[in-house]
Amino acid sequence: MTWLDIPAGHPFGVATLPYGVFSTPADPHPRAGVAIGDWIIDLPSAVRRLEPSLAGAVAGPSLDALLAAGPRVWAAVRAALTTWVTDEVYRDLLGGHLVPARDAILHLPFTVADYVDFYASEQHATNLGRMFRPGQEPLLPNWKHLPVGYHGRAGTVVVSGTEIVRPSGQRGAGVFGPSQRLDIEAELGFVVGVPSRLGAPVAADRFADHVFGVCLVNDWSARDIQSWEYVPLGPFLGKSFATSISPWIVPLAALDHARVAPPPRTVPVQPYLDDAALGPWGLDIGFEVRLNGQVISRPPFAGMYWTGAQMLAHLTANGASLRTGDLYASGTVSGPEPDQRGSLIELSWNGDDPVKLPDGSVRAFLADGDEVTITATAPGPDGAVIGLGEVTGRVVPRG
Amino acid sequence: MTWLDIPAGHPFGVATLPYGVFSTPADPHPRAGVAIGDWIIDLPSAVRRLEPSLAGAVAGPSLDALLAAGPRVWAAVRAALTTWVTDEVYRDLLGGHLVPARDAILHLPFTVADYVDFYASEQHATNLGRMFRPGQEPLLPNWKHLPVGYHGRAGTVVVSGTEIVRPSGQRGAGVFGPSQRLDIEAELGFVVGVPSRLGAPVAADRFADHVFGVCLVNDWSARDIQSWEYVPLGPFLGKSFATSISPWIVPLAALDHARVAPPPRTVPVQPYLDDAALGPWGLDIGFEVRLNGQVISRPPFAGMYWTGAQMLAHLTANGASLRTGDLYASGTVSGPEPDQRGSLIELSWNGDDPVKLPDGSVRAFLADGDEVTITATAPGPDGAVIGLGEVTGRVVPRG
Repeated sequence: MTWLDIPAGHPFGVATLPYGVFSTPADPHPRAGVAIGDWIIDLPSAVRRLEPSLAGAVAGPSLDALLAAGPRVWAAVRAALTTWVTDEVYRDLLGGHLVPARDAILHLPFTVADYVDFYASEQHATNLGRMFRPGQEPLLPNWKHLPVGYHGRAGTVVVSGTEIVRPSGQRGAGVFGPSQRLDIEAELGFVVGVPSRLGAPVAADRFADHVFGVCLVNDWSARDIQSWEYVPLGPFLGKSFATSISPWIVPLAALDHARVAPPPRTVPVQPYLDDAALGPWGLDIGFEVRLNGQVISRPPFAGMYWTGAQMLAHLTANGASLRTGDLYASGTVSGPEPDQRGSLIELSWNGDDPVKLPDGSVRAFLADGDEVTITATAPGPDGAVIGLGEVTGRVVPRG
Repeated sequence: MTWLDIPAGHPFGVATLPYGVFSTPADPHPRAGVAIGDWIIDLPSAVRRLEPSLAGAVAGPSLDALLAAGPRVWAAVRAALTTWVTDEVYRDLLGGHLVPARDAILHLPFTVADYVDFYASEQHATNLGRMFRPGQEPLLPNWKHLPVGYHGRAGTVVVSGTEIVRPSGQRGAGVFGPSQRLDIEAELGFVVGVPSRLGAPVAADRFADHVFGVCLVNDWSARDIQSWEYVPLGPFLGKSFATSISPWIVPLAALDHARVAPPPRTVPVQPYLDDAALGPWGLDIGFEVRLNGQVISRPPFAGMYWTGAQMLAHLTANGASLRTGDLYASGTVSGPEPDQRGSLIELSWNGDDPVKLPDGSVRAFLADGDEVTITATAPGPDGAVIGLGEVTGRVVPRG
């Protein structure tokens, strides 16, 4: 299948081909790369040599040009990459453009335009409703009618590996200090490539014409800051201190075999949210959340109530335009089982039932020094694994 | 005072000198300009000729370089401009760099990074609390402890004059269509120039080191969409379809004479929000809101409970970083009198008491074809008027 030496089941096999931005000590200019096995293809140099007509789309210090280039170029670049890594003829030709992944520094892969965070897991929304509005209907009346979402801070989206400084803030009337309830949210992010015009909604069936691919998101959350500040205008400083994303963007084309029907909608949706005509855009992506190396949760994305196509249609239904680099995230991925919850506030049930880790440590929320790593995989063709890589971050006290 | 022919009381006299981006039919490249009377100084060409050491700071198709250049350069550019327009020696030298304002097309003056909207008027928050939570305390418990705010959509910030397409959206369960309650919010926007480091809060007394100046903001709002969607994560599509800003950014230096003490704080604030050491950063800016040419409100900014310096300190208290081009707005400016309210939902008391205009028309909310224009002025030195220009927009139905 490939002339490269890649172990079977490697998350970055020939069916994944995710895009990122890297540099090396020998060449410190950030540039586009494609992960294959334990190598990175230096994309600008490889394309200049092997497919110069596509050089403009992969130039520059980020993926921005590629994102903006649109689906025909995305398909052409992926087709060329697939040929290079599978056709023995390219062994020598591509060889000079491969960099060992262990030598690379990975950068934020694109310029984040607007960042929107949704709330698309019924289990997550239900768990939070049960905790914070006990005795009431856990889902609010709008939840099954529209994908609830809000804007977050684009300027504090950081690449995996960036240290997370524990935020300080008001935790109640007259109380200010470091957050005592620092949490994670394991999410999937959708990366917009092709912009749209102000005043012109994007229909759900145009999803793959605008969205380039997906990444992993850890939407770090300070629950104590958030709970005091969030009425009536929503989360602000409880979220805006940092949002980490994985360095590798997996193109939608790599997720063809992961497409599954989303859960049945139990309430009819407006026509603009009807994505049935698209074929299913639920995604069978399995998440794994590790705290200091120990698995604490395995949230299944396949159970998310709202799909990425529906989120896109909703986001633009009022005529809001898209820009290249818009990032919208799914909200916390939580499944129905206790060990499928994508946040500590759920895993520890608002802190009442702290998580016991195999090493004997106990956590309701994050301690300084804790490292959280989220990984995910999806099924590929012929039994291949499509890896989404990882998003990781370590909590440090403010210096 | 100036060799230019400028009528006394002109809002763009020698004490204002606001910055914008313009082009002309003869030279369609957008570039920085400074408004003076009914002219625009072509800033890059004037600086290259008269003060070439500052050329880098005013180059490019936007104000981005100037914003990033920081307070010493801001002061140097303003000092040079002041000399040119007041010293007779420059009559001939500057003359060739003046463009009649009527010939200019005005553009979005800077690249909006993140957009944050606050809620800093006690009268506005109280009015909305009375309407939506009758019989309860109108202000929520957090309101006097922190400047409540949230992130809006940066990608749909548009320059004054851009047509506003009436948004469609869900107005309740099973109801989708054009908003029936389209509204305005008259606000002041603060434009950030100098970035800050992630994890490092910006103290209130660093306000003028980071903030370049102010503009007028109309935060168009679809009240029916907003009221259905906004729990629990805040406004989203009810706001994100468009936010208009004035084309002229008035530097903080022009507002020295407008600085006044904000209203007494009736609840003690956390040290990070204490801006008393700064000297006052309340601003005596008088707004005027016109609907189809008829004044419907005169909101006074001087009564705003939270200052721009406090908003900045709050925005970064959790370590969130600033970027050049961040825009944060005050929230609706409303005074204590009925004719000082900065939104139609307040002026018409949730639609129950529609506004009667001098021309006989009646409005609870905006009709298609309506044009809203917000202007504002502040006191300058020696009786001068500092004009903030205007932000205007006309509502059109979706085509």
